[in-house]
Amino acid sequence: MGAEFEALEAYVAAQAAEFEERLCRWLRIPSISTDPAYRADLERAADWVLDQLKTMGLAAEKISTGGAPLVYGESPPVAEAPTVLVYGHYDVQPVEPLEAWHWPPFEPTRQNGAIYARGATDDKGQVLTHVFSTEAWLRTVGRLPVQLKFLIEGEEEVGSEHLERFLSSRPQQLACDCVVISDGTQFGPDQPAICYGLRGIAYYELRLRGPKRDLHSGSFGGTVTNPANALAQILASLVDQHGRIQIPGFYDQVEPLSLQERQRLAQLPFDETKFLADLGLSGTTGEEGYSLLERRWARPTFDIHGLWGGYQGQGTKTVLPAEAGAKFSFRLVPHQDPAKITQGLRQRLEELCPPGIQMELLETHGTPAVLVPVDSPYVQAAVRAIRQAFGREPVFIREGGSIPIVAAFQQAFGVPVLLLGWGQDDDNTHAPNERFRLIDFHRGIRASAYLWAELAKIQKSA
Amino acid sequence: MGAEFEALEAYVAAQAAEFEERLCRWLRIPSISTDPAYRADLERAADWVLDQLKTMGLAAEKISTGGAPLVYGESPPVAEAPTVLVYGHYDVQPVEPLEAWHWPPFEPTRQNGAIYARGATDDKGQVLTHVFSTEAWLRTVGRLPVQLKFLIEGEEEVGSEHLERFLSSRPQQLACDCVVISDGTQFGPDQPAICYGLRGIAYYELRLRGPKRDLHSGSFGGTVTNPANALAQILASLVDQHGRIQIPGFYDQVEPLSLQERQRLAQLPFDETKFLADLGLSGTTGEEGYSLLERRWARPTFDIHGLWGGYQGQGTKTVLPAEAGAKFSFRLVPHQDPAKITQGLRQRLEELCPPGIQMELLETHGTPAVLVPVDSPYVQAAVRAIRQAFGREPVFIREGGSIPIVAAFQQAFGVPVLLLGWGQDDDNTHAPNERFRLIDFHRGIRASAYLWAELAKIQKSA
Repeated sequence: MGAEFEALEAYVAAQAAEFEERLCRWLRIPSISTDPAYRADLERAADWVLDQLKTMGLAAEKISTGGAPLVYGESPPVAEAPTVLVYGHYDVQPVEPLEAWHWPPFEPTRQNGAIYARGATDDKGQVLTHVFSTEAWLRTVGRLPVQLKFLIEGEEEVGSEHLERFLSSRPQQLACDCVVISDGTQFGPDQPAICYGLRGIAYYELRLRGPKRDLHSGSFGGTVTNPANALAQILASLVDQHGRIQIPGFYDQVEPLSLQERQRLAQLPFDETKFLADLGLSGTTGEEGYSLLERRWARPTFDIHGLWGGYQGQGTKTVLPAEAGAKFSFRLVPHQDPAKITQGLRQRLEELCPPGIQMELLETHGTPAVLVPVDSPYVQAAVRAIRQAFGREPVFIREGGSIPIVAAFQQAFGVPVLLLGWGQDDDNTHAPNERFRLIDFHRGIRASAYLWAELAKIQKSA
Repeated sequence: MGAEFEALEAYVAAQAAEFEERLCRWLRIPSISTDPAYRADLERAADWVLDQLKTMGLAAEKISTGGAPLVYGESPPVAEAPTVLVYGHYDVQPVEPLEAWHWPPFEPTRQNGAIYARGATDDKGQVLTHVFSTEAWLRTVGRLPVQLKFLIEGEEEVGSEHLERFLSSRPQQLACDCVVISDGTQFGPDQPAICYGLRGIAYYELRLRGPKRDLHSGSFGGTVTNPANALAQILASLVDQHGRIQIPGFYDQVEPLSLQERQRLAQLPFDETKFLADLGLSGTTGEEGYSLLERRWARPTFDIHGLWGGYQGQGTKTVLPAEAGAKFSFRLVPHQDPAKITQGLRQRLEELCPPGIQMELLETHGTPAVLVPVDSPYVQAAVRAIRQAFGREPVFIREGGSIPIVAAFQQAFGVPVLLLGWGQDDDNTHAPNERFRLIDFHRGIRASAYLWAELAKIQKSA
C-alpha cells in the first residue's frame, strides 16, 4: 500500500488549486433551500455535483423527490470489504443580514487562508473532500478499496423531509455497513476529532394574535392584552432562573451523564475564557450544575431564533401591535422524543396563553439525538485515517447541533455513523462570512483518502 | 344676552354651508408635517388660517420657527374677563396606506353626514369650530366677551418641538387664564364630554447585544446567553402576574383613585362587551383590581410597541442571534415624573441584565400626565356651554393618550387646560378615511360660541 499512498498524496497535492477552483464553482450557486425563490439554483447545485460523480466514473443519477433533488452515485461492490455510504448536502442557509458580509456570499473570496462564501464549510466544502479523495483513488490506484455510495441532498437545512422517505423506499440500493458524514468541526485548529454524539432538535414557530387591528397604545393601552407583551411572558416562562426548561415531561427521558464521560469531557483542552473572549463575551449563562462543554454537547437547550412584532423602524410609534411571533427550538439529547416534547410544549403554552390572545404553534421539524459507541471498529478506522492525514490523534467529542438525517440513518440501517468534521468552530456556519480554511479542506481530502483504506481492513459484517 | 345668542345662532345657521366649504378648502392643502416634501403645503395651510384670523379682524401674524410656522392671532383685552388661549394645529398625519382610502385624502368628500379627508377631525375641523364661533361673535355682536389668543401650529404630529420653545420665549404675549384645545373625541355619538385628564408617556428603545456575531444554535446553544432569550426575560420581568409594573419607585407618586372618581367612571355608559367585540377579542388582561376604563385612562401601563431579533423570514434558521431589541413605553398618570421612571427603569434593567449581554437603553421621549380639577370654574363654564349647544349634559372623561403640548401649557402658564373634543372614536384619526361628522362640526361651533360667554362670567384671577 505504500506506493498507492504516495500516488494519492502526489495527486491531491498536484490538484490542490484545481480542487479549490472547483469548490468555488459550486459555491457560486446560491442553493438556499429555505426560500422557494432559489428552486432553480438547487437544481443547478445538484447537477453540478452529479457531474462530478459521473465524470470520475461513478454510476450516478439525480433523483426527483417533490422537493430539491437528491444526487446518488455509487462505485462497484468490493468483495469482503465494507460498503460505505457518504452523506452530505448541497443546500445552504439564507444569507441575511447581507450588510454584515465583507464579501458577497455567493462570490467565493480567498482571504486569510480560507474561502469565504455561504456553504463553504456547511456543507459544500466538506462534501467535496470525499468526492475529491474518491477521484484521487480512481485516477491513481484505478479502483476503490471499499464500495462507496454517495448520497447528497438539497434539503438538509429544511429538515430533509424527502430524503427520509427515500431512505425507506430503497433499502437494497442504500444498504451499507457504515455512514460517513463530514458536516461539522474539529475540536480546534490543530486538534482533529471524531464526533460520537449529536443533539436532536425540535423547532417551532409561535404566532400570537390579539386585537384584530393595530391600536393606539394611548387610547387602548391597559385595556387589551398586548400580543408582544404576551409573547415575552410566554417565552420567558419556558425556562426558569436555573436554566431548566419548564415543559411537562421535558427531562423525563434524559439520561444523566456518566461520570466517565464527564471526566473525558473535563480533560479536553478546552479554554473557556478564550472561547468566550473569541465571541466578545465577558460572561455567560446556562443550565446550572453543568460545565460549558456539557451544556454545549450533552444537555438540552431552549433558544429563540427570531422575534418580531409591531414597529421595528426608525423613531417611535405608539402602536399596540395586533400580532407578534417567534421562532425557537429545543436542542435535544439522547432518548428525548421530539413528538413528546411537542405534546408537553402545547400543554405548557395552553397554560401560559392569556385571555385575549389567539395562539398558533407550528411544529417545523423534529429530530432525535444520536450517540455512537467510541469502541466500534469503524470509529477506530477513522482514528487511524485521521492520525495519518493530520499527524495527530483525534479526540472524541460530541456536537451540539443536529444532523436530522443521522438519526434517520441510524434508524434505517442500524449501522454506525462516522461524524468526521473538517471545519472549525469559527467558520461562521449559518452566519455572515461563512468560510472554510484551505488547510482543513486539503487535509480533509487526505484523511478521506486514508479512510477508505482503513475501512477496507474491517471484516465485512455479512 | 338673549338677543346676542339669537343673533349668533342665526349667523352660524346661515353660514353652515359656507363654513363647510371653507373647511374643505383648508383640507385640500396636504399639510403633512412628517415628510419634508410637504414643506410648501405647510406654509400654504398656515397662510390660509392666518388669512381667516386677519379677515375677521384679529391682530394676526405668521411666526417663523425654523420648522413649520406658527400662526398667532389675538383680539383686544376685555376688562375683568379672562384671557383664553385657543390651541390647535394645521399639520396632518401621513396618508399611507393610500389604497385603503375610499376617496382621495386631500379631496374632501361629503358622505354619510361627514366630511372625509385627512385632517378633517385632527385637527383642522376642530380648530375651525373656534375660529368660526369667534367670527360669529365679531360679525353679530361686534365684539368678544373674553380676550382670545389663537395659537395654531404645524408640528403637532412631529413633537411640537418649536412650539415648546416659543411658549417660553414670549410669556407676556401668551399670558392667559385658561387654554382651550379641541383635538379629541366625545364619549360617544350623542354624549359630549370634557376630558379632565391625559396620561403621560415615557418611551424607550432597548438594545441587547450578545456574542459579536450570529452563532449556530446547535454548536453554541447552551454556552452563551442568547440576546433574544434575554430580551424576553427582561421584558417579561417588567410586569408581574398581577399586571403591576416591576420598577423601583414606579408607583411612589401615583395617587390612588378617589372613590368619587371610581364611582363616576363606573357610571359612564360604557359597554365593555361591545368594546372587546369591536376589537375581535373574547377576553383581556390588565392590572388586577381596576375596571377596564380605569386601566384605560387612569392607571399606568407597560406596552411593547416593537420587538425584533434574529431570523424573521420564511422557514427556519437555527441562528443564535447576536442582537435583539424592543421599543416600549409606560403610560403615566398624574404626578409620575418621566425622569424618575427612567432612573428606576435603568436600575431595574441593570439588575435584570444577565452575564454575556451588553445593554443599551435609549430614552426617546417623556411627557408627564395632566389633570384638571373638575370643580374648576373654567371646567364648569365648559359644562354650561356644551349643555346649551348639545342639549345634553357632558360627562367627565379622561384620555389614555398623551398630548405633549398640554403638559407644556400647564408647565408654562400654570392654568387649567380645557380639552373639549368634538370628534368621535370612529373618526379614523391617523388612519385611512379620516372624517369629521357635520353635526359635530356645527355643534362644536355653537358650543364654542357659548363657551366665550360662559368663560366671561368668571372673575378674572388677576
